[in-house]
Amino acid sequence: MGSGSGLPTLAVVGATGAVGSVLLDLLSTRRNVYGEVRLVGSERSAGRGLQVRGDRAETLALSPEVFSGVDVAMFAVPDEVAAAWAPVAVEHGAAAVDASQAFRAVQDVPLVVPEVNPERVRDRPRGIVAGPGCATLSMIVAVGALHARYGLRELVIASYQAASGAGRHGVDTLYAQLEKVGGDRALGNRSGDVRGVVGDLGPFPAPLALNVIPWTGTGVDGGWTSDETGLRDETRKVLGLPGLKVSATCVRVPVITGHSMAVHAAFAERTDQREAQEILARSPGVVLCDSPETHEFPTPSDVAGTDPTWAGRVRRSLDDPRALDLFLSGDNLRKGAALNTVQIAELIAAELTA
Amino acid sequence: MGSGSGLPTLAVVGATGAVGSVLLDLLSTRRNVYGEVRLVGSERSAGRGLQVRGDRAETLALSPEVFSGVDVAMFAVPDEVAAAWAPVAVEHGAAAVDASQAFRAVQDVPLVVPEVNPERVRDRPRGIVAGPGCATLSMIVAVGALHARYGLRELVIASYQAASGAGRHGVDTLYAQLEKVGGDRALGNRSGDVRGVVGDLGPFPAPLALNVIPWTGTGVDGGWTSDETGLRDETRKVLGLPGLKVSATCVRVPVITGHSMAVHAAFAERTDQREAQEILARSPGVVLCDSPETHEFPTPSDVAGTDPTWAGRVRRSLDDPRALDLFLSGDNLRKGAALNTVQIAELIAAELTA
Repeated sequence: MGSGSGLPTLAVVGATGAVGSVLLDLLSTRRNVYGEVRLVGSERSAGRGLQVRGDRAETLALSPEVFSGVDVAMFAVPDEVAAAWAPVAVEHGAAAVDASQAFRAVQDVPLVVPEVNPERVRDRPRGIVAGPGCATLSMIVAVGALHARYGLRELVIASYQAASGAGRHGVDTLYAQLEKVGGDRALGNRSGDVRGVVGDLGPFPAPLALNVIPWTGTGVDGGWTSDETGLRDETRKVLGLPGLKVSATCVRVPVITGHSMAVHAAFAERTDQREAQEILARSPGVVLCDSPETHEFPTPSDVAGTDPTWAGRVRRSLDDPRALDLFLSGDNLRKGAALNTVQIAELIAAELTA
Repeated sequence: MGSGSGLPTLAVVGATGAVGSVLLDLLSTRRNVYGEVRLVGSERSAGRGLQVRGDRAETLALSPEVFSGVDVAMFAVPDEVAAAWAPVAVEHGAAAVDASQAFRAVQDVPLVVPEVNPERVRDRPRGIVAGPGCATLSMIVAVGALHARYGLRELVIASYQAASGAGRHGVDTLYAQLEKVGGDRALGNRSGDVRGVVGDLGPFPAPLALNVIPWTGTGVDGGWTSDETGLRDETRKVLGLPGLKVSATCVRVPVITGHSMAVHAAFAERTDQREAQEILARSPGVVLCDSPETHEFPTPSDVAGTDPTWAGRVRRSLDDPRALDLFLSGDNLRKGAALNTVQIAELIAAELTA
């Protein structure tokens, strides 16, 4: 262990960022499993004081030496920073847990969702463990639980992704656009009206207020986006199903926080609505919210700020007894990024302490 | 013919309503095929003057006598009014065209989308022709064109439905909620924040501003909604495919006008992305909008107030060469209700005049 406490030393790289601040909140509220916690940021944020576990800690500038004595290093930084620095942490003896896209597709880097494939965390030939993207994380815990019972064969997914998935700039842009359209009741009935009023599009390719945008991430071959192929590749890797059929259409919606997914899942076995609801209700990390007759179903405004995946609208498909349709919502900043990283790091800390 | 002009006499029942006003707009802008146009409303709206085809006409109160001499009667009224009065119009010699839900599932009432199955309009044993609901109409023209080439086997649909699908009250509610959330930048990050601020939910079962609601229509067996089973039943009837597999999840989004659909369509034949784009581009009633690299894809803010279905994000499914994924948007008040009704009535008028 890097510290004298007998508990592992943790480094939080990217502590001053959006996901980093949720990481520190989670470290302060979850059971403590670390000795020293070292906060690391860019040259620019070095020296900044941050609260973690009730104490004030000073942010250190990212350098090779900062990893000396570190057992677990969590990375909540852009892809290129993670790609460059996670191997440096490993060279200094740390296990690296990366929330970015940098290592997700790398063959000898496990892609881990602790509720689904916790055992994979121990097999990390490069010393690095990655987590999936926020779109995958908004549905994989619930879908993984159903897969364990019925054997997943095919997924068709349509997403309802929040502005905060595009970062602080996305949130600011949506609020600015909402202020412009809020008072104008003539809007939205004629083509181009909204586009003419919202002003700056920010990080989005079309107006987001009073609109939906069927394009998230970056373009890849065949007309697909990186979010859509990411959902496919990451789901296959986490579930260990390299031949799983996945079709996704990713859409941005005018919501601040909370990604939702309409999921059609076809299985090897016959499904049952009541049994599927019970599986979801007792799965760690999932809350069943499925009494539509009393208006109970997951919506992003109810899940923002919470940890679990909320599952509802569970139905056996009318034309296929081996398929289920359901609707899932999860906080894209918590389970979708920071929480999954914290959970992976805790698995490694337990392994080191055992 | 009911009038002396040699052209059919038209009655517009529900002329003063939301869909009725779009009907009158369309009658004023499309090629005129009618002699007399008789506007009909409730007892309460009788005597109200309305503009149609450049003239002012007085609204008549609904009564059996109002259908005397009428050749074609369009109904844009609630289900129960249509159920009661369309047969009365038929008794008086008119062909009835109903936009409501009342006759959609009735076996000897054809369900017609003129771009897809115009021939069915001639076979109307009850004298009544129905149009599908706005959810089905936002995707059926594009899907029907692809079916004609590839042979549809299965549809998985997730919808993004506008507030105006819930009527004027839905639109007013969304605007009122947007005014309340517009200026509050702390909102949307914690569970319940939005619910605490939006105030009146209006016709919706949850807040709509800064949210999405996975519940439209009314509840039916198995956890499904009437919109979801309607999409299945209506698509089967219009395409003449009683065994078609359809799974839909219908979701309300904070948009004023314009229903969108993420569609996964599996076919009997192998598909091709470029060919599918060309089929859509040359199909009447469809506009292809599919250059995502230059930010061209359908969004509701661009389609509101236009007649066609806009199609984009056309992709061959990565794991099934016989399937396509695409995104469609259409104006739920125009093609989704008034325009389809006008088109059906024009087919009947042409038959009567021929």
